[in-house]
Amino acid sequence: MSEAKPPSSRAEQRRLQMADIARLAGVSVSTVSRALSGSSLVNEETRKRVSELARSLNYSINLGAQNLRLQKNRTVAVVVPYDAGSRQHISDPFFLSIVGAIADALTDQGWDMLLSRVDAERLDLAAQAVDSGKAVGLLIIGQWRHHDQLNELAARKLPVVVWGAQLPQQLYCSVGGDNVLGGRLATEHLLAAGRHRLAFLGDAALPEVMHRREGFWAALALRGFRPDPALELAVPFEVGAARAAIEAFFAAHPEVDGVVACSDLLALQAIQVLRAQGRAVPREVSVVGYDDMPLAAFCDPPLTSVHQPVAAAGVQLVHKLMQMLEGQAVPPSMLPVHLVVRESAPT
Amino acid sequence: MSEAKPPSSRAEQRRLQMADIARLAGVSVSTVSRALSGSSLVNEETRKRVSELARSLNYSINLGAQNLRLQKNRTVAVVVPYDAGSRQHISDPFFLSIVGAIADALTDQGWDMLLSRVDAERLDLAAQAVDSGKAVGLLIIGQWRHHDQLNELAARKLPVVVWGAQLPQQLYCSVGGDNVLGGRLATEHLLAAGRHRLAFLGDAALPEVMHRREGFWAALALRGFRPDPALELAVPFEVGAARAAIEAFFAAHPEVDGVVACSDLLALQAIQVLRAQGRAVPREVSVVGYDDMPLAAFCDPPLTSVHQPVAAAGVQLVHKLMQMLEGQAVPPSMLPVHLVVRESAPT
Repeated sequence: MSEAKPPSSRAEQRRLQMADIARLAGVSVSTVSRALSGSSLVNEETRKRVSELARSLNYSINLGAQNLRLQKNRTVAVVVPYDAGSRQHISDPFFLSIVGAIADALTDQGWDMLLSRVDAERLDLAAQAVDSGKAVGLLIIGQWRHHDQLNELAARKLPVVVWGAQLPQQLYCSVGGDNVLGGRLATEHLLAAGRHRLAFLGDAALPEVMHRREGFWAALALRGFRPDPALELAVPFEVGAARAAIEAFFAAHPEVDGVVACSDLLALQAIQVLRAQGRAVPREVSVVGYDDMPLAAFCDPPLTSVHQPVAAAGVQLVHKLMQMLEGQAVPPSMLPVHLVVRESAPT
Repeated sequence: MSEAKPPSSRAEQRRLQMADIARLAGVSVSTVSRALSGSSLVNEETRKRVSELARSLNYSINLGAQNLRLQKNRTVAVVVPYDAGSRQHISDPFFLSIVGAIADALTDQGWDMLLSRVDAERLDLAAQAVDSGKAVGLLIIGQWRHHDQLNELAARKLPVVVWGAQLPQQLYCSVGGDNVLGGRLATEHLLAAGRHRLAFLGDAALPEVMHRREGFWAALALRGFRPDPALELAVPFEVGAARAAIEAFFAAHPEVDGVVACSDLLALQAIQVLRAQGRAVPREVSVVGYDDMPLAAFCDPPLTSVHQPVAAAGVQLVHKLMQMLEGQAVPPSMLPVHLVVRESAPT
């Protein structure tokens, strides 16, 4: 559970800001206070100098500003890690959707968003935006392989919320989809349609995929099937370089009649590969994707996919960070997912 | 042609910064200069006060730092205007792709990106990020209806590059696709396939769409056809609320056998509406989209579309802004587009 708190109360912060201005302007704190409240006891030159300084420093010159809405640095850093291995860029559609949803949620409240990228092996570097004072809080998209580094950030009492799975020994606040449920729904749907030789495409070294695979296994077990390790292919969400691996995988496993793919992009690639190898989708092989991106309904064939509530995720991530900045203790949360059935894996 | 220049040479800019600091600290410019160079002629309290002020204002305190790589504030503001009318959010896929490409280009060079949204009627507000010192330069995605406001930003010598069309009397630097060519290619392709009753979907009050329509008209004229104003429907790039208008439009125009849509989203919506009204795509009506988003090839049917070079756009926008920040005069540029033929409008 995260218990990150901002350093101090609003009043305290205002006192510190005025002390800063006083020191920088070379005048007393009471002069700053008078200047900012427009008192005639302060001469015009000093008053202008102090207000300009306050503005330049992005300090709120409204002394009555008690709440977050009037906080001066209204910038949140959003960090999208990139996998140095897969060289996954920010242009991945699912991550872009989350970034877009966060941008909408932040700008709806008049906040700015500092977008940056860090190597997924060095999530600790995400703290720089806050440490340098550029941003007051941090949203990190995905845990990748570094639960440990995220725990370290939380241990530093940094205001941070992470998009991802809930894990044991988690110190940080996370918001994520219910991945076990998602994996289970996709698998049950294929089994109910009579598909039994199911492939799982995704890299279970990533916590979200690991949970989806748990759901996949649970659904198989419930029907008395044992997962076949040979039918699991560890590929990143975004393919490209992994295309050859997918081709080799399906060529080696002509028995596969159903696919649980851990992203819609992976599902689309699988469909292209299967068709190129002469296998009809969905007649011979059913394919379920993950994310239910906005264009899933327009794909060929329209994709059956596990819907992730992206807009709600943006709102929730921002809401939790704001609560944290207001000094509240903020528990992690899991958002419901559901299966949207379309032609790539009909009932 | 834009001849936008940064306000001044680096030396000039440094002089202005020192004057600012002097004024705000209530000391002379020569004291600031001595303080920043660590001279022992300045007492310790003043030296600390001046350096802190320089840092707070994000001014480079390294007087020897001549080049951009050593500039302290390495943040660019990226502004995505939203249309208060259509309530188009940042989550529009084309704008997200451009934002992703810019993010990749900036982070590849170790720069941060401040993402914000402004009302498309108040593009002048985009300057705030630079005026407040949060960012040193500005990228604005789209001109919307406010060429005038963008000219005002450029007249203020603000370092700004705009994604959009080249227009007459343009003071600012723009990077955009060749929209006249794009409109022409889409139209020629439909005419060559024997389609003559062509509809144009897009809001020509937006400069990019206006140019696409010029290309549309030019291609028609070349074949001796006159555009029928009744076959033009002014809809925003992202539909939703405009769905009803598209339905009414096609219901009223059963003669339409080809569609030039100004975004892939519009094309997909048109295809859905046409099919719902019992018209086969592409057998009875061919549809060409615009943007060639990454998923266009996976759509049902795969979309024929005008390809916009999004990754190159990100690189170019960032490159031009960097040149501007280095004091160079930077002309606008237009990127080539080409038609990608797929099943929605076959040859």
